[in-house]
Amino acid sequence: MLSPTRRLNHSLPRVKNLLDVCVVGAGGVGTIAAYVLENSQRARVTAVLRSNYALVKERGFDIDSIDHGKVTNWRPHNVVSGFASAAADKKSYDFIVITTKALPDLTSSIIADLKPLITPGKTSLALLQNGLAIEAPFAAAFPNTPILSSVSMIGSRLTNSTSVFHQYPDVSKIGAHLHHVDDTFTGATQHAAAALYVDVYNAGLAAAKAKTNARCLLVEDISGARWAKLLWNASFNTLCTVLRIPVGELLSGPGRNTLLEPAMREVAAVATAAGYGDAVSEDMIQNMLHDSAPTSTFRPSMLVDLENERPLELEVILGAPLKVAKEKGVSTPILTQVYELLNQIQWKLT
Amino acid sequence: MLSPTRRLNHSLPRVKNLLDVCVVGAGGVGTIAAYVLENSQRARVTAVLRSNYALVKERGFDIDSIDHGKVTNWRPHNVVSGFASAAADKKSYDFIVITTKALPDLTSSIIADLKPLITPGKTSLALLQNGLAIEAPFAAAFPNTPILSSVSMIGSRLTNSTSVFHQYPDVSKIGAHLHHVDDTFTGATQHAAAALYVDVYNAGLAAAKAKTNARCLLVEDISGARWAKLLWNASFNTLCTVLRIPVGELLSGPGRNTLLEPAMREVAAVATAAGYGDAVSEDMIQNMLHDSAPTSTFRPSMLVDLENERPLELEVILGAPLKVAKEKGVSTPILTQVYELLNQIQWKLT
Repeated sequence: MLSPTRRLNHSLPRVKNLLDVCVVGAGGVGTIAAYVLENSQRARVTAVLRSNYALVKERGFDIDSIDHGKVTNWRPHNVVSGFASAAADKKSYDFIVITTKALPDLTSSIIADLKPLITPGKTSLALLQNGLAIEAPFAAAFPNTPILSSVSMIGSRLTNSTSVFHQYPDVSKIGAHLHHVDDTFTGATQHAAAALYVDVYNAGLAAAKAKTNARCLLVEDISGARWAKLLWNASFNTLCTVLRIPVGELLSGPGRNTLLEPAMREVAAVATAAGYGDAVSEDMIQNMLHDSAPTSTFRPSMLVDLENERPLELEVILGAPLKVAKEKGVSTPILTQVYELLNQIQWKLT
Repeated sequence: MLSPTRRLNHSLPRVKNLLDVCVVGAGGVGTIAAYVLENSQRARVTAVLRSNYALVKERGFDIDSIDHGKVTNWRPHNVVSGFASAAADKKSYDFIVITTKALPDLTSSIIADLKPLITPGKTSLALLQNGLAIEAPFAAAFPNTPILSSVSMIGSRLTNSTSVFHQYPDVSKIGAHLHHVDDTFTGATQHAAAALYVDVYNAGLAAAKAKTNARCLLVEDISGARWAKLLWNASFNTLCTVLRIPVGELLSGPGRNTLLEPAMREVAAVATAAGYGDAVSEDMIQNMLHDSAPTSTFRPSMLVDLENERPLELEVILGAPLKVAKEKGVSTPILTQVYELLNQIQWKLT
């Protein structure tokens, strides 16, 4: 008997012309996205690689995935060593999927490089990135390009230049970020782009026989999901980084009550002031506090970045919600200090 | 021509009976105190040692001091391995000098052990320790014993079990902490104990031909000096510890303006609310901010303790002033969060 996801796959119409997708940042998240999209048999992927280009070109990726099992020597349709090659290789893309860290300088640089890759009226951007307000710089640069915004908890990372370890089911939410709507750039156009991406992605998950409840959910408004994820990212992730301790130590120490829970409530208060109170309920706070074991040795992404002396996603995880807090007049004593401490810490990293 | 300090030495009356002094905690601070006191030729010191007792008994201390130069194989009059031996060895002490870290559990334990060493009407306690309100537990335990409270910036530490490196001139302030005054336990009695200690100590500095402006200053009220030292300790020391960076990095990074200077102002606001505004002027804040070079690699004591996984002097350096802030209704957003962060960090150390 076929599973529901298998049936979904069969019910999708086959398209003659494959969608062309450019994936920027083939790290843990980007490689899994590329793998799923290609498995849909409705898309072919050009991956823009940097440091690992030659190795991936030669031997491909080895993937160890909770969804897809072990896959060796896998390559997307095409790998290129930079944006110029991506532009030369393919005249126009249907989707450009950004899966890099959301860092201000990197985003500026990507936006400059993206311009030749975007075909007005055809290309949509899909941002598979952490944080809040990540869409704004892309929207400013590409006012008539649909911007799809995705929130996931995939837990996928490179363990070396060509090996991906993918830990959690690939469950994501995606929606059109309606940055601008007018007669020639309608909301329907932008939502349709999101719906197409979701269709193809779920087809890929089905075809790849994902072993879990992996799925891509189309949502009307992605902002609530971003705030909900910030409940965790702006509290657990940032506090574990300042303290340089794993999740379990924070949950079982005095900081659980004096720092962690009040920090989550600060995020919830800002989200509520911004109109997203439904996305950040007290139940969600309690669930997040009880979902991880007090013995958990999990080191969140920002702490791993610090330990590897890489820049932190501080602006999109704390800077952006604090800007909203300021606009709305919400008091955030813990988040503000944690931001300033991390800002000082990363000053030496950048 | 004799220097003023040499003349001071000559002008002091010689006493026939040496004062008996027990020094508890012969680390960097205690060893220098013992050395100076013995050099006065007016006191003999019994040092209570723990882990380094056997080594010191055998070969003494090697001292490398900015004040006293290099002194090898130096032993105080007597070294003992614990409080019981100190009690057995000497029926009564004139001064018991506490130079350990000011940690709540350690203080409780010392107070319990001190009881047999204190002769009512004779013994005074001298606390050569960091922080605020350190006198309270001693005052509660010994209501009729003079408590001398000292603030210094000696920068002296053990580099191994028997070697002392003494970096900054031995300039200290000392005064009687008048915890309790009545007809039989007058303020004059308590001030006299402080004056005697200062006389002997300065005689020791003179006799030891201290090479710097080393001196012990008798002050009427030591609390102002403690708040002044907290300006540095509750800000530089604690922030460098949370951030795990040296002083220069904090001074040259963004945290100087967003964390350090406002934290100092919070200390000043609390001190002012407590009646010690004169001790914490804006000039002092600016001097402290400009006294250290932006290239300074100095790692403050609390950071060194953290790096060596030793307990932090958190309660006396931040806990006590924050208690005053709460009583006086002074807002301390930075100090409060830094306290909670350090409390979480040291939870694993103790």
